[in-house]
Amino acid sequence: MTAPRHLIIADGDFGPMTSKTANSIIRYHPERTVAVLDRQHAGQVVQDVLGFGGAIPVVGSMREGLVLGPTSILIGIAPKGGQLPGEWRAWLGEALDAGCDIWNGLHNFLADDPVLAAKARATGRTLHDLRRPPADLPIASGLAKSVAPLVVLTVGTDCNVGKMTAQLQLTRKLEERGIRTRFVPTGQTGIMLEGWGIAVDAVVADFVAGAAEWLTVEGSRNADVVLVEGQGSINHPGYSGVTVGLLHGSCPDAMVLCHQSSRQYIGDYREAAWLRIPPLSHYVSLYESLGAAVHPTRVIGISLNTYDLSDVEARRACERAQQETGLPATDPIRFDAAPLVNAIADERSRYLRTRKAL
Amino acid sequence: MTAPRHLIIADGDFGPMTSKTANSIIRYHPERTVAVLDRQHAGQVVQDVLGFGGAIPVVGSMREGLVLGPTSILIGIAPKGGQLPGEWRAWLGEALDAGCDIWNGLHNFLADDPVLAAKARATGRTLHDLRRPPADLPIASGLAKSVAPLVVLTVGTDCNVGKMTAQLQLTRKLEERGIRTRFVPTGQTGIMLEGWGIAVDAVVADFVAGAAEWLTVEGSRNADVVLVEGQGSINHPGYSGVTVGLLHGSCPDAMVLCHQSSRQYIGDYREAAWLRIPPLSHYVSLYESLGAAVHPTRVIGISLNTYDLSDVEARRACERAQQETGLPATDPIRFDAAPLVNAIADERSRYLRTRKAL
Repeated sequence: MTAPRHLIIADGDFGPMTSKTANSIIRYHPERTVAVLDRQHAGQVVQDVLGFGGAIPVVGSMREGLVLGPTSILIGIAPKGGQLPGEWRAWLGEALDAGCDIWNGLHNFLADDPVLAAKARATGRTLHDLRRPPADLPIASGLAKSVAPLVVLTVGTDCNVGKMTAQLQLTRKLEERGIRTRFVPTGQTGIMLEGWGIAVDAVVADFVAGAAEWLTVEGSRNADVVLVEGQGSINHPGYSGVTVGLLHGSCPDAMVLCHQSSRQYIGDYREAAWLRIPPLSHYVSLYESLGAAVHPTRVIGISLNTYDLSDVEARRACERAQQETGLPATDPIRFDAAPLVNAIADERSRYLRTRKAL
Repeated sequence: MTAPRHLIIADGDFGPMTSKTANSIIRYHPERTVAVLDRQHAGQVVQDVLGFGGAIPVVGSMREGLVLGPTSILIGIAPKGGQLPGEWRAWLGEALDAGCDIWNGLHNFLADDPVLAAKARATGRTLHDLRRPPADLPIASGLAKSVAPLVVLTVGTDCNVGKMTAQLQLTRKLEERGIRTRFVPTGQTGIMLEGWGIAVDAVVADFVAGAAEWLTVEGSRNADVVLVEGQGSINHPGYSGVTVGLLHGSCPDAMVLCHQSSRQYIGDYREAAWLRIPPLSHYVSLYESLGAAVHPTRVIGISLNTYDLSDVEARRACERAQQETGLPATDPIRFDAAPLVNAIADERSRYLRTRKAL
């Protein structure tokens, strides 16, 4: 299979902290990205909008985008609730007519849309509904606690703080040290990047932990370390159930706590200023007490997202996090990832010694 | 609508702690129960098997049950994973032919079974799939924290310890005191009993808290107190995500912790002796810290299930729980429910004073 060439839809919501899926594809597979469709930034290049991504153009219509020869349309923003905006349906029809497949990470499945499904059949194109869970998922049985590799889960102070990005970066850095490391995708973006995984937030609630268990066992083959992509946050009023199902299903031996340093409120409720983000040490204690209620685990490092801070502020944020928690802290994208890579490598050595001693 | 007359299927799993749905229907609506189908106890009466239920017969085949004139078949056991045993499909077909509706609380929806769906259409009967969630559930927005009544959630040390039963009993007792109390069903059995509700464990994970919020708001009309039926347990490896989604979506002002006094291990994993049930005070601390991360809440009482203990042992269990936690503790079915009723009534007075002071 040749690599796809995506036209990414991020209309009306393209920006450093909003178009999470689009941004990750652009960051990790810029060579697969033909253009971004966003009427608000049409005429600019991606670099202007995101601060990375180079000369990839932003176009203002589906027609302009299709001229550039994409092989697929990728839905690159995840609106709250996951609903497909009505207007986009026409664009997707146009793209199918032009011979494109569609990659969709929303809760709404395109294959369930009679018009688009019929058009895909007629044009011979594929609708990839990446959030559709596999059938026959198990109830968690505890299998994940017995896998051979060290399992590390990223946990967060909120949604969209860098839990996936941290794991992708740490995977690369651990591999560079010769530690066989497997990234386990648990959300639509990770699945788009890696070509496998389950969007655990789209699974029927009773089976979330079972899905996490299946993923962890699957990821543990021929690996020294398994890095499970975290979801949501333990105090996110809408998504905490997903976070906890993932935590208890994957049975991590260690956790890395992710935080966006400038954020003060849980983002989805920031307009109501409902939930102020408590101190990092409070999260460490919550995640450790809840995680350890099922499988022994602890937080071994802090991964910060400092994209909107100056260098001086960012350095200071890392120092503060380290002082507050007593744990290694860094922004693994902006600065040296070594503090976290070392923490995982050390934890793995400790883990192997403990296993041997048993 | 005339009340249904159920033939309850509990084949192979009929007993005091196994056939939870069957037992609740029999306990609260014995007049609606024609017979129980269970080959293992065929020929006995329900009283012999459960210790309550009187002379309701246990039959050994669908044919014998249908002779007694039920208007509906009620699936009364919830096997792990919720799968419909293959053998039952024939029984259900036989029952549809005999003019019965079917009440189903499993994760498998009967309406999705082509054979049974066709037969129901042909015979004009109804397949009630009680776990099918409504379409278009919201993401939780925090509405539940602002409802006028006091919201009380039951939380548990495990599944199947009495979280629903406690709320039903407390609803009755609070009503007797003139406090307008609304029970909010969050599982298939509660829905069967009350005729409304959402089985939150069958909702796509991202929407569990939204479903809990919708239920709480719905239950708060013309009520002084809302008693939300809890699900699962915060340390249940398979179902903790449901528990936490319900906790954060319903924003309880207070919680009642439910426990079966004789239980030592989380039941679904007892064969592997995986997870020993920690002390009650540990649960109080876990539920309070996690609940309060979204909305101020505390545990105000302990509801014990002592069905398998002698009177002396049961009294002692209540005293021990009270000493350990410093909270009122009782078995509200077996003994006087007043300690818990008082705790809720007092909490409501405190709640009203605080609201007024604001």
